Amino acid sequence: MKLGAIEAGGTKFVLAVGNEEGEILEKKVIPTEHPSITMPAVIDFFRGKDIERLGIGSFGPIDVNADSDFYGQLQKTPKTEWVDYPLGKELQDHLLVPVIIDTDVNVAAMSEAKWGEAKDVDSCLYITVGTGIGAGAYIKGETFRGLSHPEMGHIPVRRHADDDYAGGCPYHGDCLEGMAAGPHIEKRWGRPAEELVDRKEVWEMEAYYLAQALVNYIYIISPERIILGGGVMKQKQLFPMIRTMVLELLNGYVSSPYLTEDTIDKYIVSPGLTDEAGVKGALYLAMGSRM
Amino acid sequence: MKLGAIEAGGTKFVLAVGNEEGEILEKKVIPTEHPSITMPAVIDFFRGKDIERLGIGSFGPIDVNADSDFYGQLQKTPKTEWVDYPLGKELQDHLLVPVIIDTDVNVAAMSEAKWGEAKDVDSCLYITVGTGIGAGAYIKGETFRGLSHPEMGHIPVRRHADDDYAGGCPYHGDCLEGMAAGPHIEKRWGRPAEELVDRKEVWEMEAYYLAQALVNYIYIISPERIILGGGVMKQKQLFPMIRTMVLELLNGYVSSPYLTEDTIDKYIVSPGLTDEAGVKGALYLAMGSRM
Repeated sequence: MKLGAIEAGGTKFVLAVGNEEGEILEKKVIPTEHPSITMPAVIDFFRGKDIERLGIGSFGPIDVNADSDFYGQLQKTPKTEWVDYPLGKELQDHLLVPVIIDTDVNVAAMSEAKWGEAKDVDSCLYITVGTGIGAGAYIKGETFRGLSHPEMGHIPVRRHADDDYAGGCPYHGDCLEGMAAGPHIEKRWGRPAEELVDRKEVWEMEAYYLAQALVNYIYIISPERIILGGGVMKQKQLFPMIRTMVLELLNGYVSSPYLTEDTIDKYIVSPGLTDEAGVKGALYLAMGSRM
Repeated sequence: MKLGAIEAGGTKFVLAVGNEEGEILEKKVIPTEHPSITMPAVIDFFRGKDIERLGIGSFGPIDVNADSDFYGQLQKTPKTEWVDYPLGKELQDHLLVPVIIDTDVNVAAMSEAKWGEAKDVDSCLYITVGTGIGAGAYIKGETFRGLSHPEMGHIPVRRHADDDYAGGCPYHGDCLEGMAAGPHIEKRWGRPAEELVDRKEVWEMEAYYLAQALVNYIYIISPERIILGGGVMKQKQLFPMIRTMVLELLNGYVSSPYLTEDTIDKYIVSPGLTDEAGVKGALYLAMGSRM
């Protein structure tokens, strides 16, 4: 049986055909443009490939409630040309196969739990810090959804004492994403991140915001591993800063062998998978299993 | 078959014997004192009552990992005489029955999901605002635990512009609990809450902190109902203030029929159960089911 998989991201769509063993047989990457340009290319890729199901890990917010009339429909995404776009239905109507949709970060968390940095534990949180900030949780065999899928990137954060950047989230101003996503690092400091690599204060401020978020996630979800990915996290100097600040903020309150100076580098980690994580997770969704 | 149930709270222990139908046959309330006083009374109550299992909903932090060597042991609780006390093991050793332990707030969330305000939905969050602040989540048939049980009362919050109270959490100073738990309302305003009922600024400040916390929980867990209990929430004027501030803070970002001006009074609610919720939940734990 052949299966289709899509990692639908804000900048690119990764399209793949795979099999039930989770192997990817064929792959193509196309840029994310207006749906009228991107979607015909997506449909064209899958047409005639005989896939029996299609799994999608998508940017959001998106309706991930399989019982909803709007399942697979994008919501108030900052990518305005995709607002209210019925991604799942469009693909189902054109390809005539069942479509299973989850968020990109949920799918990444699932991939890391299955094959990556969290394969030895029962729960993990995957956070991406890039043009936006999002997180997905995978807990005891399921991605995590309630009323809607989580929107962990938009939590309120305390302002750093030396920070006078107003914040750039169109909905919340100075929420986590508005203060710490890649574009706001650049706007705050007036130059691209590549030119800021050696400025310690830039990354200490960034770590301050991200550590606050992690402390929230630890208190609220208590995941057994935290994986930090996305473009901003390629600045590897952030990891030790974040780990130190998380321990400072927790101040010994949560008793866990993971949360000590000697062990936290195995608790807050980089992704174990390459850029294929998203599409492999989407293939796993298509396999119809929840792991 | 007879079953034992304990709601182990910071001020009182509720002890009960019930049956497999969830009926309570006998009940006793004793004050929470030093373990050397409280525990013999607990053991004495259950001795000779022929219970076959014992369920406990306990204050915390407490080890709730059934695979741990320290399962049922209290941790760094502010009730210092109970720190490291092996509550589960002590009862198991004396009563010679299997003991199942979860946190008081998890058990309350389970009770509300089974019999109370959340019986029509798949997930809920129960928050108690009293001498401390704690929360439990019940999601698709299970209480929610990862690395440890959640400690949602200790998340960082943004300070209200008019608030110069330092905060009173021994671990974090001005975290949510340090700013918004009952004793800190009294310390901030210099008088007991009963004498502050008519002062709008008191409750607006309180609502500001609690609304921030709820927004965090909504973004991170996305529960289908939020139940606010505990002594402070007897100030019913808090509910409309909290609801309004939650909608303001979310600013329309989460699309849900629950999160509108017309519907939020059915989303953020008072507990549906009386004071028996804790002990009924503990009985349910003893029944060995996870609902």
